[in-house]
Amino acid sequence: MTNLLLDPDRLFPADPSQREITRDLYAGVKDLPIISPHGHTDPSWFAENKCFTDATSLLLIPDHYLFRMLYSQGISLESLGVPRVDGGPVETDMRKIWRVFANNYYLFRGTPSAMWMDHVFYEIFGLDEAFSPNTADAFYDHINAQLITDAFRPRALLDRFNIEVIATTEGAVDDLPHHRAIAGTPWAKRVVTTFRPDDAADPDREDFVQNVALLGEITGEDTTSWDGYLAAMQARRATFREFGATATDHGHPTALTADLSKKECDALFARCLSGEVSAADAELFRAQMLTEMAGMSLEDGMVMQIHPGSRRNVNAELFEKFGRDKGADIPSKTDYLDGLQALLNKFGNEPRLKIILFTLDETTYSRELAPLAGHYPCLKLGPPWWFHDSPEGMLRFRQQATETAGFYNTVGFNDDTRAFLSIPARHDVARRMDCRFLATLVSEGRLRLNEAEELSHDLAYGLAKQGYNL
Amino acid sequence: MTNLLLDPDRLFPADPSQREITRDLYAGVKDLPIISPHGHTDPSWFAENKCFTDATSLLLIPDHYLFRMLYSQGISLESLGVPRVDGGPVETDMRKIWRVFANNYYLFRGTPSAMWMDHVFYEIFGLDEAFSPNTADAFYDHINAQLITDAFRPRALLDRFNIEVIATTEGAVDDLPHHRAIAGTPWAKRVVTTFRPDDAADPDREDFVQNVALLGEITGEDTTSWDGYLAAMQARRATFREFGATATDHGHPTALTADLSKKECDALFARCLSGEVSAADAELFRAQMLTEMAGMSLEDGMVMQIHPGSRRNVNAELFEKFGRDKGADIPSKTDYLDGLQALLNKFGNEPRLKIILFTLDETTYSRELAPLAGHYPCLKLGPPWWFHDSPEGMLRFRQQATETAGFYNTVGFNDDTRAFLSIPARHDVARRMDCRFLATLVSEGRLRLNEAEELSHDLAYGLAKQGYNL
Amino acid sequence: MTNLLLDPDRLFPADPSQREITRDLYAGVKDLPIISPHGHTDPSWFAENKCFTDATSLLLIPDHYLFRMLYSQGISLESLGVPRVDGGPVETDMRKIWRVFANNYYLFRGTPSAMWMDHVFYEIFGLDEAFSPNTADAFYDHINAQLITDAFRPRALLDRFNIEVIATTEGAVDDLPHHRAIAGTPWAKRVVTTFRPDDAADPDREDFVQNVALLGEITGEDTTSWDGYLAAMQARRATFREFGATATDHGHPTALTADLSKKECDALFARCLSGEVSAADAELFRAQMLTEMAGMSLEDGMVMQIHPGSRRNVNAELFEKFGRDKGADIPSKTDYLDGLQALLNKFGNEPRLKIILFTLDETTYSRELAPLAGHYPCLKLGPPWWFHDSPEGMLRFRQQATETAGFYNTVGFNDDTRAFLSIPARHDVARRMDCRFLATLVSEGRLRLNEAEELSHDLAYGLAKQGYNL
Repeated sequence: MTNLLLDPDRLFPADPSQREITRDLYAGVKDLPIISPHGHTDPSWFAENKCFTDATSLLLIPDHYLFRMLYSQGISLESLGVPRVDGGPVETDMRKIWRVFANNYYLFRGTPSAMWMDHVFYEIFGLDEAFSPNTADAFYDHINAQLITDAFRPRALLDRFNIEVIATTEGAVDDLPHHRAIAGTPWAKRVVTTFRPDDAADPDREDFVQNVALLGEITGEDTTSWDGYLAAMQARRATFREFGATATDHGHPTALTADLSKKECDALFARCLSGEVSAADAELFRAQMLTEMAGMSLEDGMVMQIHPGSRRNVNAELFEKFGRDKGADIPSKTDYLDGLQALLNKFGNEPRLKIILFTLDETTYSRELAPLAGHYPCLKLGPPWWFHDSPEGMLRFRQQATETAGFYNTVGFNDDTRAFLSIPARHDVARRMDCRFLATLVSEGRLRLNEAEELSHDLAYGLAKQGYNL
Repeated sequence: MTNLLLDPDRLFPADPSQREITRDLYAGVKDLPIISPHGHTDPSWFAENKCFTDATSLLLIPDHYLFRMLYSQGISLESLGVPRVDGGPVETDMRKIWRVFANNYYLFRGTPSAMWMDHVFYEIFGLDEAFSPNTADAFYDHINAQLITDAFRPRALLDRFNIEVIATTEGAVDDLPHHRAIAGTPWAKRVVTTFRPDDAADPDREDFVQNVALLGEITGEDTTSWDGYLAAMQARRATFREFGATATDHGHPTALTADLSKKECDALFARCLSGEVSAADAELFRAQMLTEMAGMSLEDGMVMQIHPGSRRNVNAELFEKFGRDKGADIPSKTDYLDGLQALLNKFGNEPRLKIILFTLDETTYSRELAPLAGHYPCLKLGPPWWFHDSPEGMLRFRQQATETAGFYNTVGFNDDTRAFLSIPARHDVARRMDCRFLATLVSEGRLRLNEAEELSHDLAYGLAKQGYNL
Repeated sequence: MTNLLLDPDRLFPADPSQREITRDLYAGVKDLPIISPHGHTDPSWFAENKCFTDATSLLLIPDHYLFRMLYSQGISLESLGVPRVDGGPVETDMRKIWRVFANNYYLFRGTPSAMWMDHVFYEIFGLDEAFSPNTADAFYDHINAQLITDAFRPRALLDRFNIEVIATTEGAVDDLPHHRAIAGTPWAKRVVTTFRPDDAADPDREDFVQNVALLGEITGEDTTSWDGYLAAMQARRATFREFGATATDHGHPTALTADLSKKECDALFARCLSGEVSAADAELFRAQMLTEMAGMSLEDGMVMQIHPGSRRNVNAELFEKFGRDKGADIPSKTDYLDGLQALLNKFGNEPRLKIILFTLDETTYSRELAPLAGHYPCLKLGPPWWFHDSPEGMLRFRQQATETAGFYNTVGFNDDTRAFLSIPARHDVARRMDCRFLATLVSEGRLRLNEAEELSHDLAYGLAKQGYNL
């Protein structure tokens, strides 16, 4: 049993009575449609519906979960084919890269990456052997042969994965060409965008000034003034809503919010546009923007997601060579209590406002996030994020948040991934872990079975749909 | 089995061998008398022994655990009958409020509130159905009919709950009328007070200056001087001891302590009395007062409890409308190592001094609290507090504190509640979870059965009695 | 079963199927040789091979885990025979002290100390009763009688314990007399030193200036200049390598690193040598030294261990009376992300560099350490340290670090102890807990059995050997 590639009872508790309850709960939710309200898949896939080219380009090179671990063991990113910013030479022999991956696949033992990959190999490509140096070539050929068939085109996979709706994420100055391409087709209901204004709202970005100008061009607003800038943001939100967006997303280094006077905002914005912004001003501007965005959400009904606490690109040398999202984003301590105070003082008691909080600092689950979400009408807790989107991470989230926030101040699962093929695997892990948690409560007399059944549906499907107004 | 309102094996481990050991341990402690050394029940109940009026006023309106969760889902406090500071209109139809509670009772799934309420319904009122919209009216009528009987008067319930002693909590300027009323009766031994001087020791309170003056009047000391103020505090401690108090309690925002010179204290006290105290001075004054109170404890033998790390009334709008204790108290990071340094440098090595530390910041269990309590003779650890007085919270406390602090640097369980009827439920949860933890150790060969039996008694009864000098 | 002194299945999961897998995995590793790459045993034991004198002097008086707990319950260190700095009178009746220990042995219930001591009593001395006031004298006599036999000399115990290699720890100005004594003998391969330069690298130490001068004398370098000081350090590292050292160790209060210019270093070093160093300069100097030492490791290949976050000697009164290492070292919050930035910016991408990070702040496992080790080629995670070298501590480490860092960014187990006789017990606990963790993964379909078998060997033996270049 233990050497199966994919145990049908995987992630279930070992105790037979708990496992039985988990099995029953899971049977009731495993085939529910997938709601994917937050993620980073490429909308061109669904607009153009072209075949993916090969296993390495699809599964390894864009996945920083994977190459990060290989890099930590001394394998260079060049040898893994990760493109350089300067276009300099990197490995291009995809089969050779795939073999490096296979040779080092043992490094992923005990990680969610291994569980997701095994799921992809087995469930999506029908490969029922273990991935290893011995099977590397066979896997590579088999996967590539399938990828060129119609059944593996992006839209066919959307159907096969039973994805009811998937949200991509686009920046404030994105023209949404791929969403425009599918507008008016049935796909427009299933592939929606999300408004992520960081590119034009974070003065620390090297392209901030340029993006604010571009924002003005796109919207016809005068973004050299604070008022015009806000109007431009509102205009873009409206455009995003035309292309299905029900939510905004904000990836800030901290959870700081601010509530400055109009005059202070005018001056701060001017300083930020000057091109030589201080760290303190940049932080204050982001802080003010969270409060502004909450105000706009209250008006236009968009759900607001705050993703704070990732220190981005901490490896300077690597960033220079390879750019963003290369595995060198490290969580930092996050203070929600002080940070959110300004925003909550202004809008915290608005039941019509919906703000979903995420964290990479698990110490905040029981100390700050659950007490805050268990009190403020506007706050909900997002699922365990990034490094914590894992069996143990999910368990810790439920164990530490539920007793204070309850289940109904949470919003189901997000896959948050650019690895399209791993979406079913990720939702499957979440469904299994939630059923397991519920079964534990049932077996310990802390929840009744009928309640657990209802909850298992809500956690797998209902809460995500409702939480994101989908 | 799983749909019983109250599973007799609830909270026990699922593994049959562990469950068996837990059952045996629990059988040995479940009927031990309750020691309730720290709580917030109303002493007038025991002095006057009047009947409670109705289910809503008794069980819902005063319980911020309950209305906090309802509020987080957009239900206004007015509609729940929570009184406004300005006496403005709130819902007064108790049955209507009760129905709102029933309609939203599903929100409490997986929370300790649900477990406590179900215990109250079943064990205290004999209601063996699930509380729901369908049973709301029947529950309401049944509970109200019982509340007017003699068997449900406060003193009868004290007997029925097998409460050997219960401590209430009164402020420094409280005249203790209800404790005076029972003085000399047998109830005086069972209902004792606790000295909580925050009202006259925290310069940030709006009534601080007034309370310091009142303290002078009550004691006949000149509380315009630091010396007189300290003498007044000592006098009040003596008075509280006459009414059974064996302990003091200190609810500070941080764990900071200070050890200033007499001259600095004189000046600081004067600044605090000036009525325009800075945040830094207020913090320093509270810090100094912890050290002063420790010194007094060393002299008069009172046990000192420090409850730091709750940021009170963070929701400004709600505080203005409804006042304190409305669910808007959020834990904050707490630093015991730096904070307690001044106090510990002065009194840390005194084995005659007993200081019980509480926390809302679980990260301190293994990092600071257990190492401190496992070294300093004066320090003991209080039970998991507030949000962490829950099955998972208790488990985390034992798992994170025991290996470094041992069991004998802890002081058993506190219910810390104003919800009188939930006291048996809360102690029952603690006894079940402690037996469960001990049984786990036994089944894993980490503790012998006879040791676990002895410990189960100590944790349920002995350590609280001894820890609080009761 | 539960009253056995030492359950053969101790620490294994209760679930029968998981226990079975754990048993099988453990059977495969329990007799592997011990690699002890980091510890504090006294090298004179192995050089001189003299008999230990008595149970109290060997097992209790030097063990701050034990007397710390007794002290926390009001038992004075004098009464436990702990020597005073001023040579003042302390208890010298070893049997009497032993009885105090026995009378209070119940305090250790649920702690790793009890588990280690029981292991020592049973496995090493063949005592199969529980240690208690009743058996105190018999234990004392039995142990003492054995200690004077040849079978209990240090070298015989090294053989009996199956210790393949053990590293002691010596300061920068230590002349390594005991390692010199065994040089050229077969013992030199088994007992190696570790270079711990804190005595001459931490300006906060009272003997820093004196040690820097001594460093100059020993090496013939001019340690009044920064260049000479660095050269002296390099020379000492070379000498330590002659006596088997493969690693350095750095016990800093924080994880701060710095990368100053040569000119700044010259000036900072001069200020540190002036004898009146500010706290900020001392911290900056230590920070700079971590980066310097990393640079030297890159050159000479020594593995670098960083042990930050212990606030030493916080009990001023006790420190004055009894000196260092008396149980008053308390963990503090540790910031690896900001702290290590300077070092990682300079050397982070060097796969030839090996830095092993330890922590006493468990919140950093999932937030900082695992993400850092899962990215930077030079970083590995050391095992749970000090207070966390315990069953629950080990479980938390694996549960919180594995999913992000994997197993292969860790380096097996360290016993880190001066309690020589407890070494087999400590490694046994680690092996049991690791097998338990692996078995849980297997039983939940998260790892295949053959992978778990391989991993159990790596965690018990291979990773330590490889991680420390032994």
